[in-house]
Amino acid sequence: GLGDDWEILFIQGGATTQFAMMPMNFLPADGTADYLDTGVWAHKSIAEARHFGNVNVAFDGTQCNYDHVPGSDEINQTEGAAYFHYCSNNTVFGTRFENIPDSDSPLICDTSSEMFGRPFDWDRHCAIYAGAQKNLGPSGVALVLLKKDFAEQGRTDLPSMFCYARHSKAGSRLNTPPTFGIYMMGQVFNWIHEQGGLTEMERRNSEKSSIIYDAIDTSGGFYTGLAQESSRSHMNVSFRLPTEELDDRFVEEAAAEKMDGLKGHRDAGGIRASIYNAFPREGCECLASFMKEFAARNG
Amino acid sequence: GLGDDWEILFIQGGATTQFAMMPMNFLPADGTADYLDTGVWAHKSIAEARHFGNVNVAFDGTQCNYDHVPGSDEINQTEGAAYFHYCSNNTVFGTRFENIPDSDSPLICDTSSEMFGRPFDWDRHCAIYAGAQKNLGPSGVALVLLKKDFAEQGRTDLPSMFCYARHSKAGSRLNTPPTFGIYMMGQVFNWIHEQGGLTEMERRNSEKSSIIYDAIDTSGGFYTGLAQESSRSHMNVSFRLPTEELDDRFVEEAAAEKMDGLKGHRDAGGIRASIYNAFPREGCECLASFMKEFAARNG
Repeated sequence: GLGDDWEILFIQGGATTQFAMMPMNFLPADGTADYLDTGVWAHKSIAEARHFGNVNVAFDGTQCNYDHVPGSDEINQTEGAAYFHYCSNNTVFGTRFENIPDSDSPLICDTSSEMFGRPFDWDRHCAIYAGAQKNLGPSGVALVLLKKDFAEQGRTDLPSMFCYARHSKAGSRLNTPPTFGIYMMGQVFNWIHEQGGLTEMERRNSEKSSIIYDAIDTSGGFYTGLAQESSRSHMNVSFRLPTEELDDRFVEEAAAEKMDGLKGHRDAGGIRASIYNAFPREGCECLASFMKEFAARNG
Repeated sequence: GLGDDWEILFIQGGATTQFAMMPMNFLPADGTADYLDTGVWAHKSIAEARHFGNVNVAFDGTQCNYDHVPGSDEINQTEGAAYFHYCSNNTVFGTRFENIPDSDSPLICDTSSEMFGRPFDWDRHCAIYAGAQKNLGPSGVALVLLKKDFAEQGRTDLPSMFCYARHSKAGSRLNTPPTFGIYMMGQVFNWIHEQGGLTEMERRNSEKSSIIYDAIDTSGGFYTGLAQESSRSHMNVSFRLPTEELDDRFVEEAAAEKMDGLKGHRDAGGIRASIYNAFPREGCECLASFMKEFAARNG
């Protein structure tokens, strides 16, 4: 649970809005922030931060086609950085940080695509945010958690809708908030709680993803995971087939079996199965069966 | 209807977000924008614009307690202003511009609280915006109309979520858009169309507001309208009773009759009946009857 030393804000927009607001509020023009470039959205967050101050790309995942998240030995921190920003789960390539990265600077986490999918060491962070539309509720609002002592260091002289301090002072009601989205989030939080909380979410997501990863690993090389094993996401399972033509046939035939949305992001190619909290175990079993059957026919 | 020379954007946030984005995109740091201060929200839009450039308050409504919108003789324009910004309907004090103000500069209108409540001369403007939650749909998204030749003069070097040009290039899909809100807007637009369009909306709103204004004007001075007659809004009818004590009793007794939300905004006091497109004529008749009955008992 979150202690009283945290602010909970509902900010209109999504994670992308926070990509700009975090540096706008917490990165001085002459300061430097450390960013880990671990995927498509992390990369975008870096571009936004550069509008406001200096960015040190402490890990450049473009060099390994984002196939893993870095260990401590691959991270080059800046001394005295304003903050250290990472994305805990990378949807496009299907990687995640099993462990929170070590940082000497205030730690900011974009956890959009796995928030409340597992227990999390909130207190290692000073700011955590997530666009709602993966595990939390409908799109159009972000949940932003700010540790109070960090929030107090933020700018107060910004246009109100871009200023966390102003949102905080107004209890996230600077204007009419996105009431439907916030209400739905509350319903989802109750559901998570009733199901057994984050420990239960983790147990389910671990099992669900294992079902698909097993289908990859026992395919005799027909399927290749895009992510290195140590970085495998429990939310997005990405893999490819021996040829792009087979990728396409797989997506098409799966869709005919009512398994939709499996085409990989255009930046990664291949196949991507997104299995957020709301996605049932049966769907993963169904996909794994189809994978075996498809490999037997085409291998 | 809007011609092909307009961009239609869905921007996450509300009108308040546009208060910052309009000057961020269209007001150079050394430029001046004209603003009409005609109410609480117009006043806030001025404060936001001052973060980005110079503002000339071309009409200062604080001097008359916002009891009317200015005629041309009360407006002091700047020559060569980057744009001229006004709010077409002011919810808190219940005023509106019956006619679009004359301006030599590109005209920007915040029409949040009356968009699609009446026919509008779109082509007199270069930008028109509205938070959804009055006449359009659920809160959390704004409809922003930009005339293309004006949009092209906007900045392109801003953080993406704050940059109209980037939203435009991405078809309002820089990130996952607020799909529920946009879908609901579409349903509301279809409903307006089926009802007979903006001409029919105006006919209804004019009738609805007249029912309440008549109850004010025939009360022998028991009720006093907050807005001057020539500036009366068709969306928000504001009035007060002889004493604040009677205001409070009115609100309380009306609520007991299931007429809720009648307490005026704290900056205006008194009573405010908000009767947006979705509000039925029967509700206005019910309020007018109650007003007569309450005045007879307390006058």
